[in-house]
Amino acid sequence: MGDKIIDAAEVAKHNSAESCWVVLYGKVYDVTEFLPNHPGGTQIILQLAGKDATEEYDPIHPSGTLEENLKPEACLGTIDPETLSKISSKAVSERKAERTRTEAPAMSTLLNLDDIEAVAQKQISHKAWAYYYSAADDLFSKSLNNTVYRSILLRPRVFIDCTNCDLSVSVLGQHKLGLPIYVSPAAMARLAHPAGEAGISSACSKFNAMQIISNNASMTPEEIVKNASPDQVFGWQLYVQTERKKSENMLARINRLKPVKFVCLTLDAPVPGKREHDERTRAAVQTSSETSLLQASGGTPMEGGGGIGQQLFAGTDPSLTWKKTLPWLAEHTKLPIVLKGLQTHEDAYIASLHAPQVKAIILSNHGGRAMDTAPPAVHTLMEIRKYCPEVFERVEVWVDGGIKRGTDVVKALCLGAKCVGVGRAPLFGLGAGGVEGVERVLEILSAEAKTAMRLLGVEKVEELGMHHINARAVEQQIYDGPAGLNALMPLVKPKL
Amino acid sequence: MGDKIIDAAEVAKHNSAESCWVVLYGKVYDVTEFLPNHPGGTQIILQLAGKDATEEYDPIHPSGTLEENLKPEACLGTIDPETLSKISSKAVSERKAERTRTEAPAMSTLLNLDDIEAVAQKQISHKAWAYYYSAADDLFSKSLNNTVYRSILLRPRVFIDCTNCDLSVSVLGQHKLGLPIYVSPAAMARLAHPAGEAGISSACSKFNAMQIISNNASMTPEEIVKNASPDQVFGWQLYVQTERKKSENMLARINRLKPVKFVCLTLDAPVPGKREHDERTRAAVQTSSETSLLQASGGTPMEGGGGIGQQLFAGTDPSLTWKKTLPWLAEHTKLPIVLKGLQTHEDAYIASLHAPQVKAIILSNHGGRAMDTAPPAVHTLMEIRKYCPEVFERVEVWVDGGIKRGTDVVKALCLGAKCVGVGRAPLFGLGAGGVEGVERVLEILSAEAKTAMRLLGVEKVEELGMHHINARAVEQQIYDGPAGLNALMPLVKPKL
Amino acid sequence: MGDKIIDAAEVAKHNSAESCWVVLYGKVYDVTEFLPNHPGGTQIILQLAGKDATEEYDPIHPSGTLEENLKPEACLGTIDPETLSKISSKAVSERKAERTRTEAPAMSTLLNLDDIEAVAQKQISHKAWAYYYSAADDLFSKSLNNTVYRSILLRPRVFIDCTNCDLSVSVLGQHKLGLPIYVSPAAMARLAHPAGEAGISSACSKFNAMQIISNNASMTPEEIVKNASPDQVFGWQLYVQTERKKSENMLARINRLKPVKFVCLTLDAPVPGKREHDERTRAAVQTSSETSLLQASGGTPMEGGGGIGQQLFAGTDPSLTWKKTLPWLAEHTKLPIVLKGLQTHEDAYIASLHAPQVKAIILSNHGGRAMDTAPPAVHTLMEIRKYCPEVFERVEVWVDGGIKRGTDVVKALCLGAKCVGVGRAPLFGLGAGGVEGVERVLEILSAEAKTAMRLLGVEKVEELGMHHINARAVEQQIYDGPAGLNALMPLVKPKL
Amino acid sequence: MGDKIIDAAEVAKHNSAESCWVVLYGKVYDVTEFLPNHPGGTQIILQLAGKDATEEYDPIHPSGTLEENLKPEACLGTIDPETLSKISSKAVSERKAERTRTEAPAMSTLLNLDDIEAVAQKQISHKAWAYYYSAADDLFSKSLNNTVYRSILLRPRVFIDCTNCDLSVSVLGQHKLGLPIYVSPAAMARLAHPAGEAGISSACSKFNAMQIISNNASMTPEEIVKNASPDQVFGWQLYVQTERKKSENMLARINRLKPVKFVCLTLDAPVPGKREHDERTRAAVQTSSETSLLQASGGTPMEGGGGIGQQLFAGTDPSLTWKKTLPWLAEHTKLPIVLKGLQTHEDAYIASLHAPQVKAIILSNHGGRAMDTAPPAVHTLMEIRKYCPEVFERVEVWVDGGIKRGTDVVKALCLGAKCVGVGRAPLFGLGAGGVEGVERVLEILSAEAKTAMRLLGVEKVEELGMHHINARAVEQQIYDGPAGLNALMPLVKPKL
Repeated sequence: MGDKIIDAAEVAKHNSAESCWVVLYGKVYDVTEFLPNHPGGTQIILQLAGKDATEEYDPIHPSGTLEENLKPEACLGTIDPETLSKISSKAVSERKAERTRTEAPAMSTLLNLDDIEAVAQKQISHKAWAYYYSAADDLFSKSLNNTVYRSILLRPRVFIDCTNCDLSVSVLGQHKLGLPIYVSPAAMARLAHPAGEAGISSACSKFNAMQIISNNASMTPEEIVKNASPDQVFGWQLYVQTERKKSENMLARINRLKPVKFVCLTLDAPVPGKREHDERTRAAVQTSSETSLLQASGGTPMEGGGGIGQQLFAGTDPSLTWKKTLPWLAEHTKLPIVLKGLQTHEDAYIASLHAPQVKAIILSNHGGRAMDTAPPAVHTLMEIRKYCPEVFERVEVWVDGGIKRGTDVVKALCLGAKCVGVGRAPLFGLGAGGVEGVERVLEILSAEAKTAMRLLGVEKVEELGMHHINARAVEQQIYDGPAGLNALMPLVKPKL
Repeated sequence: MGDKIIDAAEVAKHNSAESCWVVLYGKVYDVTEFLPNHPGGTQIILQLAGKDATEEYDPIHPSGTLEENLKPEACLGTIDPETLSKISSKAVSERKAERTRTEAPAMSTLLNLDDIEAVAQKQISHKAWAYYYSAADDLFSKSLNNTVYRSILLRPRVFIDCTNCDLSVSVLGQHKLGLPIYVSPAAMARLAHPAGEAGISSACSKFNAMQIISNNASMTPEEIVKNASPDQVFGWQLYVQTERKKSENMLARINRLKPVKFVCLTLDAPVPGKREHDERTRAAVQTSSETSLLQASGGTPMEGGGGIGQQLFAGTDPSLTWKKTLPWLAEHTKLPIVLKGLQTHEDAYIASLHAPQVKAIILSNHGGRAMDTAPPAVHTLMEIRKYCPEVFERVEVWVDGGIKRGTDVVKALCLGAKCVGVGRAPLFGLGAGGVEGVERVLEILSAEAKTAMRLLGVEKVEELGMHHINARAVEQQIYDGPAGLNALMPLVKPKL
Repeated sequence: MGDKIIDAAEVAKHNSAESCWVVLYGKVYDVTEFLPNHPGGTQIILQLAGKDATEEYDPIHPSGTLEENLKPEACLGTIDPETLSKISSKAVSERKAERTRTEAPAMSTLLNLDDIEAVAQKQISHKAWAYYYSAADDLFSKSLNNTVYRSILLRPRVFIDCTNCDLSVSVLGQHKLGLPIYVSPAAMARLAHPAGEAGISSACSKFNAMQIISNNASMTPEEIVKNASPDQVFGWQLYVQTERKKSENMLARINRLKPVKFVCLTLDAPVPGKREHDERTRAAVQTSSETSLLQASGGTPMEGGGGIGQQLFAGTDPSLTWKKTLPWLAEHTKLPIVLKGLQTHEDAYIASLHAPQVKAIILSNHGGRAMDTAPPAVHTLMEIRKYCPEVFERVEVWVDGGIKRGTDVVKALCLGAKCVGVGRAPLFGLGAGGVEGVERVLEILSAEAKTAMRLLGVEKVEELGMHHINARAVEQQIYDGPAGLNALMPLVKPKL
Repeated sequence: MGDKIIDAAEVAKHNSAESCWVVLYGKVYDVTEFLPNHPGGTQIILQLAGKDATEEYDPIHPSGTLEENLKPEACLGTIDPETLSKISSKAVSERKAERTRTEAPAMSTLLNLDDIEAVAQKQISHKAWAYYYSAADDLFSKSLNNTVYRSILLRPRVFIDCTNCDLSVSVLGQHKLGLPIYVSPAAMARLAHPAGEAGISSACSKFNAMQIISNNASMTPEEIVKNASPDQVFGWQLYVQTERKKSENMLARINRLKPVKFVCLTLDAPVPGKREHDERTRAAVQTSSETSLLQASGGTPMEGGGGIGQQLFAGTDPSLTWKKTLPWLAEHTKLPIVLKGLQTHEDAYIASLHAPQVKAIILSNHGGRAMDTAPPAVHTLMEIRKYCPEVFERVEVWVDGGIKRGTDVVKALCLGAKCVGVGRAPLFGLGAGGVEGVERVLEILSAEAKTAMRLLGVEKVEELGMHHINARAVEQQIYDGPAGLNALMPLVKPKL
């Protein structure tokens, strides 16, 4: 690493693919050779070529990323701080202005998750909001994820002592949780708030809630679990990389972390979905960019040139199969496996045949972010009940997507879910009020879920059942077999 | 009680939990010791500490409340009237301004219940409106209560002499009523108008309509029935208190009141629902309060710290059961029991096994105020028809929730209801035009119901039946048994 | 009749129930004694007491009304024309201003019935619009009348020679019509345009379309059919009056009119519906009236004190029955009887047992004006198909309500209707452009219906059938028997 | 052809039906005699009488039209260019202004078909937009065409290697296409952009996509296929003309064009639909026209006097039948026949009996432009599956209508379609960005379809099937037989 003091004017000259320098944390780096290897694409770096890229870079790269990817000699020296202001990127300063324009209200005045989302939208950058908010195509599945819960009615019972109510559950056969509500793996928490994924961890510890760490977290797993007790329950999300060695190295790191109790292999996004809200922020940046490199390069990129979501996706392997991937995984970790992203009873059934390596499955359409018009988890839950209820006995069934109210949580539990994940809500909580905002999210959902359970005359989560809900409207919508003519289908024997 | 003349400036000094004085009806009280015992919470008093609290206090406390709760020595003396204006609470004066801003139109120009609600919203304070209007969570059940009636079609018959039409019904096997429409127990009528619950009683007497007195009425039962003839039919609503002695004392008072013909035990709200409209008015007051005590106290209260609804709820016992509560009740009153708040055929069936102590059940989701996505009474009516129609022979079935039109009343009667309650409408009537406004509500509903009956070719209420309606849309939505696969369920034998 | 010249100032003094004079067509009448006998109520006259009432009176009373109702001596003399302007009613002059504010576009630029309604709304007085537009309660049935057609799909066929298309039909076994579209009896055409019902007749003659003359027409039957050829087909609508003699006299007049081919006995409005748009215009007039007589009279009238609809209704007998009324009718006319307003298969079945006196039935919910949430005619058509299809063989089935497009006409014909009535559309046509506007309505519907038939591959009306439509959405909504549990019901044997 | 130089002032005098001159491409023509023979009607020419009509004429007439229709002596000479500006039509200049008001954004920033339509709406003339956008009556079928796809859910599968995805298909048993997406025959591409249908051809060649040339293309077939390789796949759409010889001549020309691989006989519009958006632009022009000839001519034309759609329609024969038309066609071409516009299973079944002359059928409701409330192609697909699945084995089934997303394409393929047509989208693409805009449309749909296939775990188009979708919502809506009482119908044996 060089010790030279470098003038910003000098840095500014190196603003092309031929010679590309950037400033990060006060140091000047020559990233010309790294350009083609950047998982997020060349484009995004070239826009910051010759500039201080720290504000853009920092919230989406965990610490250690620089060291892992650049050779020591890439560091050319230290930027002369007096000259630095000349090369700050305009987009960055704009975002800053945006970010501080309102003061957040007291979290206690926010009564529900919509309130929190509304505050977060004002607090965080438009780019971060667009990334969190976005979903595939026309947001149909994202919307259905929630409205399907609204179409299920609850059946309150009377004259049952409801003095006590206990939300605790056990997962994976051994881990006691304070809530049946966990934080789904969602990327880039530091876009919302500097506390990042570690802040979510801190909020979870207060409720003894489970957290699944995103493969694309903006902090390292080690940083996230640093302050956790050994009993706190974390999962670690794995997107298998085409470059297997990378995944194996990560698994080795994860195996060493006590609080991480399982690996969550995500299957519902083998290719990136099309998230137009997210992509438009990228397009906007490109359009306003002086260098206009995209235009110059010609063409109309569709695949892999989109928003944050598509950048994060780079390197993920689309060739996973039941036969190859699970055995490979068994070689590299003894942790239980949780499969995330199942959306049909057929796949749930196949997964259940892989117990006990697979201990739980997560029914999820990736928050509506992968394929639009994919079914909500409630549909898949009811498909399993209809075609292969034995799945519930072989593996735990978790669900996520669309949870806005404690009543939604309770309905999922009635349908057979063991626990229920929330993804966007904690991120919006983080954006609205940092750690306290995430706590508020968990507090609201817990209190609402408790009220619902007490009005159903239920003291413990495991007492909840199908007799507590009227899900007839949804029953009339779920998959009815390929024949489609109202015939009840026997289970289609799956090919393994 | 002290006779001293006290200066307002002196009162103003006692504005904390350490020493808390308030002025009520011209007297100064030291309520420091009472603070922790206030059923509505410490908070609400501390906001008025050192001030004249009369306007806040008066419309929500029946007379005698002071005497019941404070020792005589708590009264320190009389406020010096010349100094009083200094300590009037700002919130109060604001509310006053609000309340008088429009002149109400003649009641005869209001053609339907929506007209009346719209006028009331202008006439009453925002806080009162929010309390009446609010319902649980997203108001889904409140809305469904009404729209479910819209989805039922009426089947008019022709060439039937419809010169005469008689709305009278008998309830509880003996009491003749002029209308099958009664006033549901709804709290805090004096928030709408000084005439309060006694005003509602006066309007009911004109139509020989039944009224159920709220457990949280803003007047005493004795005041409410004072001008009633012995034949006028009242019920008294009981929320059983954790401190049983309080409930027993009330029952003793009720047993002595001739016009009260039955006790209505409310079961649909063993814990308070989450009514955000109501809670937001509380939050708004707290936010604007100079003392900002809530902030100081820290934390983010969720349970029991909400709006008027949650204050009223304090002290209610959530541990009632079929086995314990009905026998206890039998010890303290010989009046017939009406159980309010049943929402499943299972509970209706169990209740019917408690005849003849239980003479009627009220199918109700508490106006959508307890649990959102709870079923409307129409669903429960149709569930009973489907699974256990014998219930109709053992007990009377009353319903409430969502009634906006006379056709709604007639549809409920066709489905088997004996009579139909309205809760918010009389309160809005009271707010819009006092006693005359309540009369207008009953007049509109009666006239509309009569027109509907005549167009159906029906002269008497008891002739109405399932052949007068097409409820097929609702049939396709009601509970279909826990299996959920379109199988007709035999009655689930309930556990007692 | 007096010949005196009377000064307006003198007339103006007689403005109370004690002495009530009005000016009509330049003559002064003392109507004090007539006041209690006015079918439309005392109120409406008192508002015009002491004034020139001609503009209010003229468009809603057929000629001869004065002579029939007042004795000759009631005419006191002639108003001094120079003094007349002093006593013109304010409301009238306002209405005039309103009426002339826009110039109507060429009828040929109006492409559909909504265009025509929009123009009419600008051309006619608000009072007239409110009377035509209004329907019962919340306009649910009015709206459903139309949307139910939208939920039926057409099934176009290909490779069928559709060069020719013929809309003609025969009704009542003998009368050939150019169109299967007729003008329903709708009152008060002169409110829309001076051409009135005779103008509608003139437009119908151009298309050889049938017209049913309203019992409450603003012209006499004689005036309406004056220019008709003997072959033009009219029906005359009968509301049986409590004072039977009046109805018998009218029938005697009708029997003498060659072009009137049948009597249409209306059964769907034995009591007036509640039409709030209409009632509000009345309320508005009363409120702005200086004399404010309603206020003075006290009370809050609900029944019979409403808008134009309720005034017209006065005197109608609600006691008609199958047993009494049809034989009475047989005594007073030999014309075939068409029963209007059947809304259930039960009543259609009973009616069919009265063939051949009854030759046709009209399925109608009175344009949604009688009972809100009454079923649309399409429901009743499909009920008959389901429970008692033999009705189609015994009597002709006509329908009205909700027709906006030629495709709606064709769908009704596919379902078994012989012809299809339109009520509001010709009135709006009249309002938009007089006779030419009514022609445009018939022209648009005919052209649209022809296009639809040709695309279905159908040349003649009688070829249309159930295989040309997909009405499955509606089938799932129609009445399913009183048991309601998806059981197919045998026909309920009706009581006669 | 005359060589005289003619002054514009002289031309301007000939502006009536008696003597009608127009300027086209700098030449003056006397079209007086041609007036009654103009397929688009006399009206439209008279509006431009005495003026330079080039801008109006050019984009809707393929080259050669003048020569085909006018005798040489009709050309009177050359317009004096210095005088020309005096007779430019106002409407034209307005349209020009409109057309250039915005600069189109880079096609790569348009993320979906709605983006493209929005840009096109700004770029093209209002008249062109109205012609493309319009559909029959209330646009119900147009809307349903799209929303029916939204009501079908996709069923993503996991753990399937989705590295590869291949969109290629073979049609008509031999032609390999790069995409299962083709360009439907849509008229008047030069209204959108000068590149016209040849531009669409150029875009298609890049993707090896199929294009069907409209019978009413604004360029000749020869021009359109000029730059195509012999392997590029085109169809040519035939509307059979009443004047058979015209159609036969066209077929002879088509038979000589190598790239045209089949004839697409359109059956879904034997009479023109009523497209009010389109008709209103015509009405607007007529109204603003000084000559106001329509008014003068009197009457209220309904049939054939409408917008562009109706002009194009002139001359089409409505008398086609299975028996006469197919044999006639066999005499004039050996190309395979594709029948377009089938909307019932009955017609699909009959068509399948005409294999092998008929090689494919296109299920289409003409983009909702012929008959409103006609069923979407998805309904017809599912009808065929239900009643006569053997059709899929006898002929290829193609569909069009309502495609907005790649997921829509995939759903149609799952239901059994061989390929999927888009009509408006390429025209809007052309309007938004010329050839590049059409490419963008195909690129977006391809990329979206590929993503969907990969998330379904499908590599090749032919693997897609009913088990990949949940179409239960649609199954409940499709035709259920004429009995209508939920009985499954055996196939109605069709009359041939």
